[in-house]
Amino acid sequence: MLGPMRTRPAPDQRRLHRWEHRTELPLAAASLVFLGAYAARVLGHGLPQYVHDLCLALLLGCWLLFGIDYAVRWRLSGEGALFWARHGLSTAVLLLPLLRPLRVVPVYEAIRRRQRRPRLNLYARVMSYAGLSTALIGFAGALTVYATERSAEGSTIQSFGDAVWCVCSTLATIGYGDAVPVTFLGRLVLVVLMGGGLALLGAVTGSFASWLLQAFAEEGERTDRPPAS
Amino acid sequence: MLGPMRTRPAPDQRRLHRWEHRTELPLAAASLVFLGAYAARVLGHGLPQYVHDLCLALLLGCWLLFGIDYAVRWRLSGEGALFWARHGLSTAVLLLPLLRPLRVVPVYEAIRRRQRRPRLNLYARVMSYAGLSTALIGFAGALTVYATERSAEGSTIQSFGDAVWCVCSTLATIGYGDAVPVTFLGRLVLVVLMGGGLALLGAVTGSFASWLLQAFAEEGERTDRPPAS
Amino acid sequence: MLGPMRTRPAPDQRRLHRWEHRTELPLAAASLVFLGAYAARVLGHGLPQYVHDLCLALLLGCWLLFGIDYAVRWRLSGEGALFWARHGLSTAVLLLPLLRPLRVVPVYEAIRRRQRRPRLNLYARVMSYAGLSTALIGFAGALTVYATERSAEGSTIQSFGDAVWCVCSTLATIGYGDAVPVTFLGRLVLVVLMGGGLALLGAVTGSFASWLLQAFAEEGERTDRPPAS
Amino acid sequence: MLGPMRTRPAPDQRRLHRWEHRTELPLAAASLVFLGAYAARVLGHGLPQYVHDLCLALLLGCWLLFGIDYAVRWRLSGEGALFWARHGLSTAVLLLPLLRPLRVVPVYEAIRRRQRRPRLNLYARVMSYAGLSTALIGFAGALTVYATERSAEGSTIQSFGDAVWCVCSTLATIGYGDAVPVTFLGRLVLVVLMGGGLALLGAVTGSFASWLLQAFAEEGERTDRPPAS
Repeated sequence: MLGPMRTRPAPDQRRLHRWEHRTELPLAAASLVFLGAYAARVLGHGLPQYVHDLCLALLLGCWLLFGIDYAVRWRLSGEGALFWARHGLSTAVLLLPLLRPLRVVPVYEAIRRRQRRPRLNLYARVMSYAGLSTALIGFAGALTVYATERSAEGSTIQSFGDAVWCVCSTLATIGYGDAVPVTFLGRLVLVVLMGGGLALLGAVTGSFASWLLQAFAEEGERTDRPPAS
Repeated sequence: MLGPMRTRPAPDQRRLHRWEHRTELPLAAASLVFLGAYAARVLGHGLPQYVHDLCLALLLGCWLLFGIDYAVRWRLSGEGALFWARHGLSTAVLLLPLLRPLRVVPVYEAIRRRQRRPRLNLYARVMSYAGLSTALIGFAGALTVYATERSAEGSTIQSFGDAVWCVCSTLATIGYGDAVPVTFLGRLVLVVLMGGGLALLGAVTGSFASWLLQAFAEEGERTDRPPAS
Repeated sequence: MLGPMRTRPAPDQRRLHRWEHRTELPLAAASLVFLGAYAARVLGHGLPQYVHDLCLALLLGCWLLFGIDYAVRWRLSGEGALFWARHGLSTAVLLLPLLRPLRVVPVYEAIRRRQRRPRLNLYARVMSYAGLSTALIGFAGALTVYATERSAEGSTIQSFGDAVWCVCSTLATIGYGDAVPVTFLGRLVLVVLMGGGLALLGAVTGSFASWLLQAFAEEGERTDRPPAS
Repeated sequence: MLGPMRTRPAPDQRRLHRWEHRTELPLAAASLVFLGAYAARVLGHGLPQYVHDLCLALLLGCWLLFGIDYAVRWRLSGEGALFWARHGLSTAVLLLPLLRPLRVVPVYEAIRRRQRRPRLNLYARVMSYAGLSTALIGFAGALTVYATERSAEGSTIQSFGDAVWCVCSTLATIGYGDAVPVTFLGRLVLVVLMGGGLALLGAVTGSFASWLLQAFAEEGERTDRPPAS
């Protein structure tokens, strides 16, 4: 996911890096298309049938792309049968492509960097990375919860707004309890969101606290000297 | 919001700084008047009509002041059409003036500094800043939630006390669920409070933990030497 | 509360320190007596009337002691009319003596130190201090919530166990919502517990995380060298 | 539990260490057998009676092993009557053997180390240690809550899935409140989980935040230099 994790030396590393560099943008676009098509299928009650079919085709097409990318990287890595175990994160994302849009965030930052836009400071980058990731994972989670719960018996999640409200209160570790899933799949999605969201929000909170302390410490130094007025 | 963010060089920076210095106090006062007038309109059921009209006039007058200040700063900054995007926080505060009282806190500290009152240590300043900000944002949020929910069907927020209780349990990430909003606007306000409140409370908690560790570490050093008695 | 806060120079500081040193133990005992008498009055439904009267006498007597101590320290400090504002924490504890048992924790540690028992490391001390404080403040809070809520209409807190359960779920920022106060006083107590408990638990959590990281880092160093077997 | 806690010098330390080294694996296996037999007894409604009897025998046998190990370590430590107080954690684990599987995690890591598998970095080790511990303690807690609550009057925990859901929402400090214990024992288990889970999850969150900050800081350094392409 991040740079420092790609340090394992491999036989054909240059070709692998070139492949990853070239497919970065198309795969990020495919991730967003995948999320969009999934959203359209879940939320588009009134859409005509051919739109639903088109979305399904897009979903399967994107998934195929992810599979091809996975296979090529396996081949180029030259790691043989254990590739799937050593790259557990990639394998999980292949099986659960709704997590894939998380990769959009570093790609967006990489593009911004190439355009030589001013860099944000460390805390702001961590906060924006974690905040965007939380938003993407939360949106995908709300879609899945809504798709699962809307037809469940005794469910308190009747609209997509309820699902978003439930996901927000979960990610913020609040848990009002007025809208909670009752099905196994809905609860499973929320438990995953608990883990991922806690970590990501912890990153936001910790970075914000560090940034605030740093900003106050700097201001303290600045105002201790006589102002130049 | 804090000193270190005002470091971008600009053509007319001296006049801009003088303007910001002069308008600091009047704008902080206007922010409190705005919040007070809003509170009077929301909570003053029994007040006569002319008081409500007066409050409305105060609200619009303060908003006009904020708009003038924004326009003057735009002009003096010499940044042209992109000012609104570069100063996103100012723009957001202009559109949502209930967030404006947050600026009162640094102004209060600036005044205190000019009077040469003893400075608090770093952690105490971060905690008081974050605590006061949380209280102000929470009060504004509770007013809005109450105004939205009191007439909603099936609402569990029937009094201003319920709204304050709901906001407190949200800011502390507790979420009892006995008083929760059911309208879209009420939920939106609480989601904003989740984000802002989590960050601010994270700052309080983190600073308190750091302060406690530092205090114990210092006490440990002090008591390891023989006391002078 | 802690050593580093007593560094302000004062005219009669030696006599003040001697007073504080001598009254430390009796006042800590009085704090525990106060808490015990309050608990007996709240929980002792079946106790005879004269026990209740005795407890009331103990409560008032202890409060009187706290007041005398406050007055003597005011006199010895030589700070005049602003003493109450400069020592805000002492004033708050005088008005709300249920918070007083918090002082027992540092006294217990001071006694332990004089007996030359081995010191715990920094994180363990912070954790035990914050944990004991949380337990004491939570017990006092549960007593007050129970006294307020047991006779309230529509209350979900019917036994002392419910009050403890409610306080625990509040201090851990969980908030199940199956036992929540409905009166103003009960909610006020819980809001105070939210603030104090969040800070104290933040200290425990932060210290535990730091301790764990330190322990793992040390173990990593140890096991990188060949074992002496 | 961790290496740095075993630094107290003792008369017969070499024999004690050898005993601990030799019993490490069998005791870890017995811990898992204990947890498995307990799970089978709680969840295996439809199992024939002799399986239940076998599980009970396994439970008692494992407990006996733990007791023998405790007695031998007492003897070898040469610490006399105060052993139980000085090794409070061991004593607690002996009385509450469901906490014992927590020891499996360091043993698993010790084995991995002997096989010279690549070490994870510090944050990843803390996260995996805390995450596995949370999972084990949560599983044991969910079993106990389910065993206690399934027959309680007015209980909202009717299936093992409900108990797991309740434990997950407790460990993540969310507390939806749709599945909460009503018995004393069930609530006690959850209060213990609150404390342990908060600390362990705080460790995960804190490590993840630190790791993220470190990864971003390293990436920032890497991309500030011109790439070698």
